[in-house]
Amino acid sequence: MSSSALSFAHQNYNRFLDELKDFLRIPSISTTPEHKEDCRHTAEVLAKELSRIGMENARLIETEGHPLVYADWLHAKGKPTVLFYAHYDVQPPDPLEEWVSPPFEPTERNGNLYARGAVDDKGQAWLEVKALESLLAADGKLPVNVRVLLEGEEEVGGEGIANFVASRPPELKSDCALVCDTEMFAPDLPTLCIGLRGMIYTEVEARGARTDLHSGMYGGAAPNPFVALAQIIAQLKDENGHILIPGFYDGMIPPSAEELATWKRLPFDEEKYRKTEVGSKELVGEAGYSVLERTWARPTLDVHGMPGGFTGAGAKTVIPAKATAKISMRLAPGMDPARAFEQYKHYVEKIAPAGVEVDVRLIHAGDPCVVSVDNRYVQAATRALHEVWGKDTVFIRSGGSIPIVGAFERYLGAPSVVMGFGLPDDNLHAPNEKFNLKNFALGIDSVIRFLEEAGR
Amino acid sequence: MSSSALSFAHQNYNRFLDELKDFLRIPSISTTPEHKEDCRHTAEVLAKELSRIGMENARLIETEGHPLVYADWLHAKGKPTVLFYAHYDVQPPDPLEEWVSPPFEPTERNGNLYARGAVDDKGQAWLEVKALESLLAADGKLPVNVRVLLEGEEEVGGEGIANFVASRPPELKSDCALVCDTEMFAPDLPTLCIGLRGMIYTEVEARGARTDLHSGMYGGAAPNPFVALAQIIAQLKDENGHILIPGFYDGMIPPSAEELATWKRLPFDEEKYRKTEVGSKELVGEAGYSVLERTWARPTLDVHGMPGGFTGAGAKTVIPAKATAKISMRLAPGMDPARAFEQYKHYVEKIAPAGVEVDVRLIHAGDPCVVSVDNRYVQAATRALHEVWGKDTVFIRSGGSIPIVGAFERYLGAPSVVMGFGLPDDNLHAPNEKFNLKNFALGIDSVIRFLEEAGR
Repeated sequence: MSSSALSFAHQNYNRFLDELKDFLRIPSISTTPEHKEDCRHTAEVLAKELSRIGMENARLIETEGHPLVYADWLHAKGKPTVLFYAHYDVQPPDPLEEWVSPPFEPTERNGNLYARGAVDDKGQAWLEVKALESLLAADGKLPVNVRVLLEGEEEVGGEGIANFVASRPPELKSDCALVCDTEMFAPDLPTLCIGLRGMIYTEVEARGARTDLHSGMYGGAAPNPFVALAQIIAQLKDENGHILIPGFYDGMIPPSAEELATWKRLPFDEEKYRKTEVGSKELVGEAGYSVLERTWARPTLDVHGMPGGFTGAGAKTVIPAKATAKISMRLAPGMDPARAFEQYKHYVEKIAPAGVEVDVRLIHAGDPCVVSVDNRYVQAATRALHEVWGKDTVFIRSGGSIPIVGAFERYLGAPSVVMGFGLPDDNLHAPNEKFNLKNFALGIDSVIRFLEEAGR
Repeated sequence: MSSSALSFAHQNYNRFLDELKDFLRIPSISTTPEHKEDCRHTAEVLAKELSRIGMENARLIETEGHPLVYADWLHAKGKPTVLFYAHYDVQPPDPLEEWVSPPFEPTERNGNLYARGAVDDKGQAWLEVKALESLLAADGKLPVNVRVLLEGEEEVGGEGIANFVASRPPELKSDCALVCDTEMFAPDLPTLCIGLRGMIYTEVEARGARTDLHSGMYGGAAPNPFVALAQIIAQLKDENGHILIPGFYDGMIPPSAEELATWKRLPFDEEKYRKTEVGSKELVGEAGYSVLERTWARPTLDVHGMPGGFTGAGAKTVIPAKATAKISMRLAPGMDPARAFEQYKHYVEKIAPAGVEVDVRLIHAGDPCVVSVDNRYVQAATRALHEVWGKDTVFIRSGGSIPIVGAFERYLGAPSVVMGFGLPDDNLHAPNEKFNLKNFALGIDSVIRFLEEAGR
């Protein structure tokens, strides 16, 4: 394995890393309005960099929310077109006090780079750009046609890119997509993700009394919205983690026996996972399914926060007029987000206890999807990864949602090569998010070799 | 009915009201550390005012928390000693956006004074002081011996005053206590409260994973502390509001048949109460008990807030490492707070679902209590109220907790005259708290006449 692009990447690695640090310093938190300008600035940095390395037509594409970044290079006649995808937005960094180094001051420790967005997904967006730079700088051209489409709303539902892709614009015409937003199954184990769960993220607001009331005066007669929400949540899953919404599992496509058999051969120890990754006294979930099945291929339901009432230190004896539960569900292939939400909404409204009115809102939704191992681009990626990492690729799924992968398939007819370089302990969405520096370096090499293989 | 003290009070009413407004401007929120100095300043204002009107030995008594205010006047030889109680601390004003006028800028509208603490309890503390001023100014003396003991931690459990009273200090030796911290049953209906519920205020912290986790990656295997808390809360009460903690109701003393019969004669319409006071689509609570029984004489359980996880706008797909529920229970006479907490803690630990560890903490506790209608001070108050308001007094209970009333009984042997001038729609602990201005004025008269009757 050798190419002038790889040599260029290796020679320029230190600069690439310094640039990534600058890129991570911008707090591109998509969910909080006060970071709107930071998101736009991040998009502008990307467009400028794409233009600088020789990509063409680099520009922002406006959406209702944060802008998309587009660029292309379409001079590889007769060669396929690959659509590069990543996202430049990040999750909020709270709880801040648990970060060892500040979330927006990228810091190297133990061969990792710590920062919010280091691996999810600004680090992986940057390695895509650096692979393109290496090819263009070393060869003066790319081995395939490339379009780049980066978004800034992945963490908040990706409505802007979804609408854009759904409009089937000519500038997205592609043969396959390259999505760098996932992780490797284990350190040094090259991984392609061929299945993703979908999701619906919802809020249930429960309203009782007209105004906040004193629990001494009114306790025993006034409805308590938190108690109502607790009663609702307790009826959403049984004690084995099975979701109780009628019809919820209908239409679900379970993994094949063959795929399940390959999962059993993966280096995965449930007890080690419990101890080192989760750290809870025991794992939970549906009886009769392995952890990989439960997290990759089964629907789940989680509660993320319950705003309302009094949450400060000390005691306030209030019966709040209203309270909200942020509840999401992950969906397995074969499940339809719109139908799942209707079933859920209907069920929540039905089980809502006396005294409260509930409002069930969909915040965002994404399709589940599965791609084929036999696809020529998946095969090209498999060869590339084997060369760079010196090992056979494993084919896994991810429990996370990348709704855009389903949209590329549905609207562009483009299957996705989901090739990510995160590691299982990278603390995604949590304090002390990190990106392994070796994976950053080999990630660039992997993308370079994937394009070379795809262009053969 | 006439007395020179009443005349003085009537002539000085406008000044009294202006002083009250100044008093209410100090944000003496006891539960938030940043208002510690405001609480001390409020105590100092009270001590200075007590001294100015002619009370003696006015001073602050330090506690671990906010100081007590003490003063006395002990020159009524052969007469009984009455211990005046009120509290100068207030609840936090949030949610701020629901206040029509700012919580710490007292504003008159429609015959009411709107401010945090207007009625609970700074307005009632001030009317006690103004009654004493009127008697001292008009007569040069008081008709009984009076001790004043005001606290600044009623809203956070009253630990300081509880410890002080429990030490049975000589300066608290009294024949009865006058407690102004409750409400009238209806406008213009003079009311003495002869029973109060006790309470325990707790926190349940549930801990699952070691750190916050991504719900896509880990949903289906990692325990969710909010789901665990919901499952716990859903098992604390049944759908009829009956508390399911084993042994919880043991020892409870229900109201007598006679007392229950008098409650039936009170002007109380459950449907009107639902519509005008609570404003919910229906009332909740234990089947087979009237609203007055449920709120005055039955134990209840409420959830006040559930801090943890993501509570901002938008979506964050986090499985939080921990979450907390603030849960309180009101206790009926005969129930012991310490025993109730042990039963609750044991039960919560037992029903905590797999995967989470729970920590059950007592934040504060207060005894329930009942006082006798035949007590000579209750009788003196009954006569005073009849004269001032022109109507027979009704004897009620309150669902709220005034732990100090139990402590006065237990440690000082002093029964309490619980004579309050709030109204049922005063928005205690809620936005737009108010004090009816007529009640402020007649409250001063009532306290003046009570002392005159007690001294006969």
